Amino acid sequence: MRTLVLLSLLGLIVTCQAEVFTSLVDLEHVIYTESSMLDALREYVKQEELKIQKVKKLMDELQKANTEAVQDPEHYLSHPVNGLLLVKRFIWEWSEVENIIRLDVPKTNYLVNISQYRDYFPANEDLKGAGAALLRLQDTYKLDTKSIADGNIEGTWKSPPLTAHECFEIGRIAYNAIDYFHSRLWMLEALHRVERQDDPDKTVEKADILDYLSFILYMNGDMDQALSYTEQLLAIDPEHERGNSNKRYFEYHVSKKQQPRGEDDEEEDEDDD
Amino acid sequence: MRTLVLLSLLGLIVTCQAEVFTSLVDLEHVIYTESSMLDALREYVKQEELKIQKVKKLMDELQKANTEAVQDPEHYLSHPVNGLLLVKRFIWEWSEVENIIRLDVPKTNYLVNISQYRDYFPANEDLKGAGAALLRLQDTYKLDTKSIADGNIEGTWKSPPLTAHECFEIGRIAYNAIDYFHSRLWMLEALHRVERQDDPDKTVEKADILDYLSFILYMNGDMDQALSYTEQLLAIDPEHERGNSNKRYFEYHVSKKQQPRGEDDEEEDEDDD
Repeated sequence: MRTLVLLSLLGLIVTCQAEVFTSLVDLEHVIYTESSMLDALREYVKQEELKIQKVKKLMDELQKANTEAVQDPEHYLSHPVNGLLLVKRFIWEWSEVENIIRLDVPKTNYLVNISQYRDYFPANEDLKGAGAALLRLQDTYKLDTKSIADGNIEGTWKSPPLTAHECFEIGRIAYNAIDYFHSRLWMLEALHRVERQDDPDKTVEKADILDYLSFILYMNGDMDQALSYTEQLLAIDPEHERGNSNKRYFEYHVSKKQQPRGEDDEEEDEDDD
Repeated sequence: MRTLVLLSLLGLIVTCQAEVFTSLVDLEHVIYTESSMLDALREYVKQEELKIQKVKKLMDELQKANTEAVQDPEHYLSHPVNGLLLVKRFIWEWSEVENIIRLDVPKTNYLVNISQYRDYFPANEDLKGAGAALLRLQDTYKLDTKSIADGNIEGTWKSPPLTAHECFEIGRIAYNAIDYFHSRLWMLEALHRVERQDDPDKTVEKADILDYLSFILYMNGDMDQALSYTEQLLAIDPEHERGNSNKRYFEYHVSKKQQPRGEDDEEEDEDDD
């Protein structure tokens, strides 16, 4: 069974996404491209650290000379050697510092090094394709969102746990594909992770998740829930323009729904006659 | 006596160099300018170190993900979450790395910060003036070159010991002012320091010193010594063009001088008659 799942998954990706980047072969190339880019980045860090050491060394020498000068400038300058050295410091050492900083060799080298790989960089289209493949899989095999996000799919495949931001991005891919069903699932997963304060460095803004959720629930026809998410959004960001305008809209529709069958309905019945 | 020396020194610098930068007042301003530039440089180093930390953190995360992927790309990519995360890494994390490197905020900030001080930077003219003041002092008080270079002037003034490069530069200032007497003294001091391997980071090329010395001695009419320095230069740099051409010239003049009074002299006597 698992082999079948795996094979059909491969087939799914390869046949349906043939014209997009996400064929297995192309993504393998991206993996190796990434390895090369990591080599370039490691070299950048090494060169940068050497550069900073050089600058710090010059800075310490300049500081030492300047500290002495500042203590008693008149006395310091009474010795013409000191005056000469002061002038010389600007013409040599300070120029050298400025050149090191301005030329910025590590940056130049890094950007040149990675330029050869740019043609192999995935783009937004590939993200859409990869996201769509994931959602198709989820749909086909009725996979639980949390399980996918935790990296626990039926014990077979290993994948890292997803961050709130990653769940949010999958939710956005679904949203942009007008797949509100999956968008809601992934936005809720993102919301849970934010509320659990999972991975604080990469967290997405809770307000942004609620903004999407309120619209998704509205599109699903659930005004009560849309209003509820909007109110949560406004509790965080009371000035949120769309939130405020949506609130009035949702409140109107919720109150209209709650009105007992009365005047309006009798008027409608009369119109129908 | 010392007070007199100090006062006349002040007077010497102020009156003779009034139109050049090296009045005491202006150099005092340069000292304070340098202090401000050191603040800007310290800030640059701090921002650079934070930037590197940020890049290293991203690099470690990217390396971790890529290491797993590279172990078995096909297996890794069999899970569509991994494919999605791979694509996402390029669109988010790798872009973020590139932006941090490309924008180079610390460099921009530093160059902006110091731009306000550029009007107060001493220039080559000021170096000439400061050097001339020093040489005038040396001349007036018959000060020993080594003592000045060691920072030991008659026990009164303190100045730091000079490097070989600094002695060379003073020698050059004198040379450019056609002051071969002092130029020779300072070039010799530079040579001694190079041979003592004093301060290896800032050393000047021995060949450059010998190049100047051979010309200075020639200008002083001392062909033997000029030849000797030229031969020492060629021992270090056998392809030195000027050295090779000078050698032939000096050798000719030395040999002419060494010829015993004979034919040529008798011919000269006859011409005189």
